Amino acid sequence: MRADERQPLQLRPIQIDTDYLIHPEGSVLITVGNTKVICTASVEEKVPPFMRGQGKGWVTAEYSMLPRATGQRNVRESAKGKISGRTMEIQRLIGRALRAVVDLDAIGERTIWVDCDVIQADGGTRTASITGAFVAMVQALHRLYQTKKLAKYPVKDFLAATSVGILEGNEVVLDLNYIEDSKANVDMNIVMTGNGEFVEVQGTGEEATFSYSQLQELLKAAQEGISELFEHQRKAIGEEARAKIEGNASK
Amino acid sequence: MRADERQPLQLRPIQIDTDYLIHPEGSVLITVGNTKVICTASVEEKVPPFMRGQGKGWVTAEYSMLPRATGQRNVRESAKGKISGRTMEIQRLIGRALRAVVDLDAIGERTIWVDCDVIQADGGTRTASITGAFVAMVQALHRLYQTKKLAKYPVKDFLAATSVGILEGNEVVLDLNYIEDSKANVDMNIVMTGNGEFVEVQGTGEEATFSYSQLQELLKAAQEGISELFEHQRKAIGEEARAKIEGNASK
Amino acid sequence: MRADERQPLQLRPIQIDTDYLIHPEGSVLITVGNTKVICTASVEEKVPPFMRGQGKGWVTAEYSMLPRATGQRNVRESAKGKISGRTMEIQRLIGRALRAVVDLDAIGERTIWVDCDVIQADGGTRTASITGAFVAMVQALHRLYQTKKLAKYPVKDFLAATSVGILEGNEVVLDLNYIEDSKANVDMNIVMTGNGEFVEVQGTGEEATFSYSQLQELLKAAQEGISELFEHQRKAIGEEARAKIEGNASK
Amino acid sequence: MRADERQPLQLRPIQIDTDYLIHPEGSVLITVGNTKVICTASVEEKVPPFMRGQGKGWVTAEYSMLPRATGQRNVRESAKGKISGRTMEIQRLIGRALRAVVDLDAIGERTIWVDCDVIQADGGTRTASITGAFVAMVQALHRLYQTKKLAKYPVKDFLAATSVGILEGNEVVLDLNYIEDSKANVDMNIVMTGNGEFVEVQGTGEEATFSYSQLQELLKAAQEGISELFEHQRKAIGEEARAKIEGNASK
Amino acid sequence: MRADERQPLQLRPIQIDTDYLIHPEGSVLITVGNTKVICTASVEEKVPPFMRGQGKGWVTAEYSMLPRATGQRNVRESAKGKISGRTMEIQRLIGRALRAVVDLDAIGERTIWVDCDVIQADGGTRTASITGAFVAMVQALHRLYQTKKLAKYPVKDFLAATSVGILEGNEVVLDLNYIEDSKANVDMNIVMTGNGEFVEVQGTGEEATFSYSQLQELLKAAQEGISELFEHQRKAIGEEARAKIEGNASK
Amino acid sequence: MRADERQPLQLRPIQIDTDYLIHPEGSVLITVGNTKVICTASVEEKVPPFMRGQGKGWVTAEYSMLPRATGQRNVRESAKGKISGRTMEIQRLIGRALRAVVDLDAIGERTIWVDCDVIQADGGTRTASITGAFVAMVQALHRLYQTKKLAKYPVKDFLAATSVGILEGNEVVLDLNYIEDSKANVDMNIVMTGNGEFVEVQGTGEEATFSYSQLQELLKAAQEGISELFEHQRKAIGEEARAKIEGNASK
Repeated sequence: MRADERQPLQLRPIQIDTDYLIHPEGSVLITVGNTKVICTASVEEKVPPFMRGQGKGWVTAEYSMLPRATGQRNVRESAKGKISGRTMEIQRLIGRALRAVVDLDAIGERTIWVDCDVIQADGGTRTASITGAFVAMVQALHRLYQTKKLAKYPVKDFLAATSVGILEGNEVVLDLNYIEDSKANVDMNIVMTGNGEFVEVQGTGEEATFSYSQLQELLKAAQEGISELFEHQRKAIGEEARAKIEGNASK
Repeated sequence: MRADERQPLQLRPIQIDTDYLIHPEGSVLITVGNTKVICTASVEEKVPPFMRGQGKGWVTAEYSMLPRATGQRNVRESAKGKISGRTMEIQRLIGRALRAVVDLDAIGERTIWVDCDVIQADGGTRTASITGAFVAMVQALHRLYQTKKLAKYPVKDFLAATSVGILEGNEVVLDLNYIEDSKANVDMNIVMTGNGEFVEVQGTGEEATFSYSQLQELLKAAQEGISELFEHQRKAIGEEARAKIEGNASK
Repeated sequence: MRADERQPLQLRPIQIDTDYLIHPEGSVLITVGNTKVICTASVEEKVPPFMRGQGKGWVTAEYSMLPRATGQRNVRESAKGKISGRTMEIQRLIGRALRAVVDLDAIGERTIWVDCDVIQADGGTRTASITGAFVAMVQALHRLYQTKKLAKYPVKDFLAATSVGILEGNEVVLDLNYIEDSKANVDMNIVMTGNGEFVEVQGTGEEATFSYSQLQELLKAAQEGISELFEHQRKAIGEEARAKIEGNASK
Repeated sequence: MRADERQPLQLRPIQIDTDYLIHPEGSVLITVGNTKVICTASVEEKVPPFMRGQGKGWVTAEYSMLPRATGQRNVRESAKGKISGRTMEIQRLIGRALRAVVDLDAIGERTIWVDCDVIQADGGTRTASITGAFVAMVQALHRLYQTKKLAKYPVKDFLAATSVGILEGNEVVLDLNYIEDSKANVDMNIVMTGNGEFVEVQGTGEEATFSYSQLQELLKAAQEGISELFEHQRKAIGEEARAKIEGNASK
Repeated sequence: MRADERQPLQLRPIQIDTDYLIHPEGSVLITVGNTKVICTASVEEKVPPFMRGQGKGWVTAEYSMLPRATGQRNVRESAKGKISGRTMEIQRLIGRALRAVVDLDAIGERTIWVDCDVIQADGGTRTASITGAFVAMVQALHRLYQTKKLAKYPVKDFLAATSVGILEGNEVVLDLNYIEDSKANVDMNIVMTGNGEFVEVQGTGEEATFSYSQLQELLKAAQEGISELFEHQRKAIGEEARAKIEGNASK
Repeated sequence: MRADERQPLQLRPIQIDTDYLIHPEGSVLITVGNTKVICTASVEEKVPPFMRGQGKGWVTAEYSMLPRATGQRNVRESAKGKISGRTMEIQRLIGRALRAVVDLDAIGERTIWVDCDVIQADGGTRTASITGAFVAMVQALHRLYQTKKLAKYPVKDFLAATSVGILEGNEVVLDLNYIEDSKANVDMNIVMTGNGEFVEVQGTGEEATFSYSQLQELLKAAQEGISELFEHQRKAIGEEARAKIEGNASK
């Protein structure tokens, strides 16, 4: 049993509060154990320069942590004047993952800006961001659809993410908290669709390696955890959006 | 009567949620109408280079807004690679205001980092930040005192802030929301102590001016509003801290 | 009596040399005691992006100090690669103050760039900048008017600024030099118009506070000092511009 | 058969020229098809601040492309003043991968700086960098060992990397060139050790997804390609280093 | 005789490998002793903003060193976030020198981007860059001419550069390597045309000076060295380009 | 005769006002025609990191222009966040030139910071800066010597600079103003010592070249102009400093 009394393949308690803020077109507060992330989706009526004139849309993400989201205060990236490699990696991952389930042709020349701001961190902030950002994005796109700005429902399937890892005693665990993450030999982030397809598989041994059979075990643990996350997302987005997405996914 | 049905000299509803986050030494979520700011206070066991070796402490503040705290999404300052003049002005103001009620000698060679992150903005973010930051800072300093790290209680008095302004019809109003603020001819931010002393008086006519008698009216409106804020702070910080601060203030 | 033999409410000697440089449309060297600032006004035939298409003009200011304007050499902001919070605060203040007396509609889609470069500093550089910048700006706008580029005289009133403060012995003083400024408990910068209206009131207690009655005393001292500054400005700008501005101000 | 007449699971021609430059402690030019990367390893007799005093060493990597390594000229990152997210991701990956096969305790408080500069790009630059950087790093560490600066041979196993992907017709291919990479639905980079363990598995569907069985096929293709790369590395590093590494790997 | 057994006025061995890379319109690897520079020329079908609409082209250069081109590893300028004064000086020099022999009217509204990347440094990197960049630029312009994009052959004359200096014993030497350069009292870089005209003469005494007669001796040494460099360039560019340039130069 | 009625080899009127500012250890306003530069010298009691522990001093220079020193307003380098290549080239030149006449051993571990701020520009700002900076530096070093901080007089000789050029009609002219400079085919800056030795010779043909005999003519013109500058410097620095420097120079 783990320090927080979870079973190895048990997720932490999840909560997704929708319409968390008044201004954005979509916004949620996602809570995964002690990790809390505000995810917002903003609609901009143009696309970045490299996309112009193609009649297609774009989805992009930014990620940040409040300075005191963590045990020690971190210097703000705005104060340093530059974004760390870690932040860039995470925001590229979130954007790429979301684009895998969006029909960019269907949203027209619009950009969906997804912002994930971690207000409290206890491991798994990038996967919680993806899981929460999906819901915020669906809200924003659903409104565009409802107001007849889109002819076709643009969300192709559900999308959620979790982490799995191998702890020192060689045990495979699901949804690592910060303490577990910092002790893990292998850390893997998995993003999947509602249909059970992979979008991202990022496994890393920091000063360690992992075998083929361990990799299989990690993938299986992630698949089970992610199925559970889809349940929370289905409730959060409401019946109408759920039906539309499941309709698209079953084609 | 105002658009949100308030009287001219009526504050918006205030709420101060303490211990809002698990990691910081002090943290609050302050809500002033639709304005919401997370204020945290972090203790660092050293002072900036220009203060070293004097046996004194330092209090410094940083301020930021989430990109979608506002009606339109703002580009992150970390992405721009620099902090705007507005942000700098605000964080200098918050730090200076807090230092006015802290006995820097009493806190020893420590820095109190105060972070004010606006998650939702509807006018008055800088004054809400000061009012909330005071509470977060008291929590952090109170813990240092309780754990015997400080010989003397370091908070000299209460500190809160509000805005006042002159609307187009020449009406003096208290605690302006965003719509009012953008239409006001004169905008004034006032920071005061529990003893009724001024710490900051910043009055600005943007493409307008104000007379001596208008200034008097503005000051009076602010004084009344701020007295009410102290009530909220007193409740938020708890009986023990309140008694200590009032003891210091009455000397 | 003060260290430099002035009375508490006595200004330092003022000098405003006009047409100080050959290239700018307006330029002065303003001397206030040992503080010397070169103020220039440049006319650009366009406005910043956020102003375009409104038929209105804009006035903006930049402020800088030569590295050896002060007792110790300061690192250049160009070498640091960023502008300090103090500089940003000051240049925002100067621009805002000047705009209060300019009819932006009357200048058309033009930007007046005001540059204040401190070549020698002894306290009061921001208020000397405002007082000198007003004269340089009037010169530039006067030329536009004389050459028939403006239909209406765009300067609505005189504008000048000074500082007041409370020294340690609780004495209110006018026009603080550097030594006084660094010892003052309260420091206040006041910007006023020729009609006696306030444009900016910025009072700050650094690790100190001030009472309502002290505030009244400070305001009164500033008003008297600023009246004297208007005399110097009237001489500097010449009879024709003076008549035009006074005509506008009396409407 | 592929455009360049390769079988789906065939690598491009590989060449590793060692001691390519006179100054670095280790240097190679690795050629993989038309992709050419100069990899150097430099020994610095200290570690970064966060590692000091632990008696351990560090391995870190930097990656860059000449502006005209590609079909279109790219603006230099030094001219832009910042490093792109893609570059950061790649250099973090290279460093992490190399550290997985280095005994950091055995190298003492030293940093091995690995620089991978792509002089010609045709897909697979990050995996070619890892494969080449391993050889340059072994050269540098081997010299430290030969000159008795290290008590223990610090390289624990071989390390190489390649890419695999799924092309539009659902075909799994090995070692994608630029044209294939830009058309692939799924792109996966795999880093493995001589013992057949995984160090990194990074699979990404850009606007696409992949199934569990496709993932298995990709992993298998990568394993075969990487075995061949080890043969080139063994020849490049020479008999003595090869024996030492294989001795460590068999423990 | 010098440390590397050269006579005082003897150049190091020169080699110019053309078509060194597959992507650029022109590319060479120039080797001068142990100094090796990759020079590429890229054609862009537009000019910088300050040149637009004049019907003329532009030639600009960038220069960089790999971090381990030198005996000690240098921090990358992209990592520092800014370009050093030395780099700026060199790239301005290369661009200016090349423009002296190009008929900018003849190339139309195009920019020739010349990139000089030093992969190994042993003194004389800026002069080797100019000598090699000339050849890469001729290749790119020659292709434009051959494909009928230019009506007139745009290269007016040959262009090459070398360094001369005064060593401690007052001896004038040609083509200094790194060791000589770091001990020289006077260092001079000379750029000349095939017709024997000067384009740049940059002589510098670092903590030293030089007389009129020494200056004459330095100029003479450079002239002789540069004549030899033209021989290498003539071979490298091929018969057809050579004839065209010599035709232009003899007008 | 030239547009400003000068003979081809005639300097513009020169004026050197010493002790121009109250704070710096040395300061002058140098006027060369319409070019005006404030040069200051500041003494810092330490050297940069790369010089520490050698018992030697350092002289370094910074150069800047006020935004409206020129006919068109220039964006400040602090606002751009970086220093231009032109500025870097000039400040490196000024520092290098001054170091050629200073005995760095004699000044001990001190840095002399020389700041040249152009308040009005009409060509020749870099050479006026060198000529003026020499005087400011002598003042600062003279004070160190007078207060017995230096055992040996550290200035080895006089140092001054001017520009020469070739105008379109092939005429060699001395001390070019801005109009002449922008039309010149060849522009050369020469720095010389009181003994008639060269410190810097920087001749550049922008889209032009120059012959050996033209070079000789340019050098001769510069020599004559510089002799006259030494007369102004001798008067400016005073009898005592002059005697000391001439004593050193005649050794």
